[in-house]
Amino acid sequence: MVNKDFEKIESIIKERKYAHDFFQKNSKVYRTFVDLEQNTFSDGELPKKYKELIALGIGIVKNCESCMEWHTNEALKSGASFEEIIETIEVGIEMGGGPATVASRFALKVLDYYKLKK
Amino acid sequence: MVNKDFEKIESIIKERKYAHDFFQKNSKVYRTFVDLEQNTFSDGELPKKYKELIALGIGIVKNCESCMEWHTNEALKSGASFEEIIETIEVGIEMGGGPATVASRFALKVLDYYKLKK
Amino acid sequence: MVNKDFEKIESIIKERKYAHDFFQKNSKVYRTFVDLEQNTFSDGELPKKYKELIALGIGIVKNCESCMEWHTNEALKSGASFEEIIETIEVGIEMGGGPATVASRFALKVLDYYKLKK
Amino acid sequence: MVNKDFEKIESIIKERKYAHDFFQKNSKVYRTFVDLEQNTFSDGELPKKYKELIALGIGIVKNCESCMEWHTNEALKSGASFEEIIETIEVGIEMGGGPATVASRFALKVLDYYKLKK
Amino acid sequence: MVNKDFEKIESIIKERKYAHDFFQKNSKVYRTFVDLEQNTFSDGELPKKYKELIALGIGIVKNCESCMEWHTNEALKSGASFEEIIETIEVGIEMGGGPATVASRFALKVLDYYKLKK
Amino acid sequence: MVNKDFEKIESIIKERKYAHDFFQKNSKVYRTFVDLEQNTFSDGELPKKYKELIALGIGIVKNCESCMEWHTNEALKSGASFEEIIETIEVGIEMGGGPATVASRFALKVLDYYKLKK
Repeated sequence: MVNKDFEKIESIIKERKYAHDFFQKNSKVYRTFVDLEQNTFSDGELPKKYKELIALGIGIVKNCESCMEWHTNEALKSGASFEEIIETIEVGIEMGGGPATVASRFALKVLDYYKLKK
Repeated sequence: MVNKDFEKIESIIKERKYAHDFFQKNSKVYRTFVDLEQNTFSDGELPKKYKELIALGIGIVKNCESCMEWHTNEALKSGASFEEIIETIEVGIEMGGGPATVASRFALKVLDYYKLKK
Repeated sequence: MVNKDFEKIESIIKERKYAHDFFQKNSKVYRTFVDLEQNTFSDGELPKKYKELIALGIGIVKNCESCMEWHTNEALKSGASFEEIIETIEVGIEMGGGPATVASRFALKVLDYYKLKK
Repeated sequence: MVNKDFEKIESIIKERKYAHDFFQKNSKVYRTFVDLEQNTFSDGELPKKYKELIALGIGIVKNCESCMEWHTNEALKSGASFEEIIETIEVGIEMGGGPATVASRFALKVLDYYKLKK
Repeated sequence: MVNKDFEKIESIIKERKYAHDFFQKNSKVYRTFVDLEQNTFSDGELPKKYKELIALGIGIVKNCESCMEWHTNEALKSGASFEEIIETIEVGIEMGGGPATVASRFALKVLDYYKLKK
Repeated sequence: MVNKDFEKIESIIKERKYAHDFFQKNSKVYRTFVDLEQNTFSDGELPKKYKELIALGIGIVKNCESCMEWHTNEALKSGASFEEIIETIEVGIEMGGGPATVASRFALKVLDYYKLKK
């Protein structure tokens, strides 16, 4: 993992925090979205870990880098193994074709980043 | 569940079979895709059930009705509960917003269909 | 406007209601989404009418038929003129290209439907 | 090819014509889009046939049924063979994954339809 | 707003200009697209301001950064207030879910950029 | 073409190689996807060149930068002329609207890059 990738991921994390603070203060709609997020990803019949993996799969197909970073981290914190992340990426590739293999490169960097942080 | 919905789902199943047979016979690319599919959705560290739920979540966000039908059925056959399907739909809604609530209506019909078939 | 189109639109309205009732009863995530929707589309600095037109433009680019039906109706109820709906469709075409001209056909049917209902 | 598919394709053709006539009369934006379309798909260094196949590939990945119908017909009229259409579908599958195999079913019906019409 | 964001936005503006000049000179299709754009966003029953906000909402859901930059600027120049831009972002979030909250971060930077320029 | 664009393209090429090597070693699903890719883009009734142009058109509409880089290069290596690439971009614009004009900027840089390398 090169330095530039490391910086990109940290920059995504910082930007999320900045915008989150702004919208929390200024947007009731955003605050309701945060409620929606918390209700969605709490443990249910489906443990949080699997919900995060579902969201990661969606993030790959939509090529949403910040989604991949967030849901990978949340999945790891909920006990997902690196291998489970890889298999989620594989589902993303089956469902997204060529462009999903491009997204999977960023997902891999995120995985490398969290391996280093551990 | 009204009759028209029932017929729509059965028609998706029939059309999939018809096209599958044609492409199996006539397209090496398609045959390789079928290999890709089988390698993707076999049990790994992540049991098949969860891979199917990830694909269902993607199907909701992409509003792919045939994907919803197929991966719901595969998830159910792999032991997913109705409640787990509902929670997968919820992740789809969080990740897809308003249009995903539209897709969730079809996912619900699929669930009703397989409840009836059981 | 032929009969089949009329029936299709009424069927979208009925299906929305059916799924809405189910998810209202069974999904806390969905109920939070409904809050999100209400907070989003209430009058603000931007009157509800324009918010509905923005959502209609998004519905066209995403080819979400139920979104087109809902947000056209809401826009009309908030005072949008037929011409304003047409101009919203035009923005959708500029932003969505060829496939948006396909979506615009359904938007036009919705408009015809509500002209008839008035 | 069953009757229902035949009717669906003819209904797409009819709806396109109806909306085209309306927007031609009522929307300057639409008329400019028609110019854009004609400039795009005329013979250049790339003969019209290949431009239509590119658009068909895009139509598959976007699951735009009317696009598939139109660009398949235009490609055939410009001399594309059935096999070339199939290989275009294959590129769509590689670039679109599972959901593109779903779209390819409709592309196949369109091909069947035009085989019958010939 | 950090320096890097400022530079990114200025780089988008510069790249747009560079490509615009190239395609204006070399592509009749592109020139027709520019006509389409001008016809679309001129004042009609719907003032230009609202058309730009519709396009901004679409840009958020498509995560098109250059679209967000352009249509925010055009909306501001047509008299949109910062609050109206925020409410447009909110519609984008309702229609785009989690990935739209990611796009909204860039929209916010654009807003910060034009606040500074004013 | 400025230095930063040159570096971005080379960085895409390097990242693709890095991830490709990782997934080749660690993912059977990915290896099957590589088979799929090779079967798709080999000469058939449709020469490889045109298949690459179809994939480029899809890459534009999906705003997949790495896809644009790869398929432009493959098209050029298969004998596509710069003009044929431009006309493919034009089809992308017709099918993708405003956001595709944004993607076309990157496609243009890729073209500049390969002109320089020649």
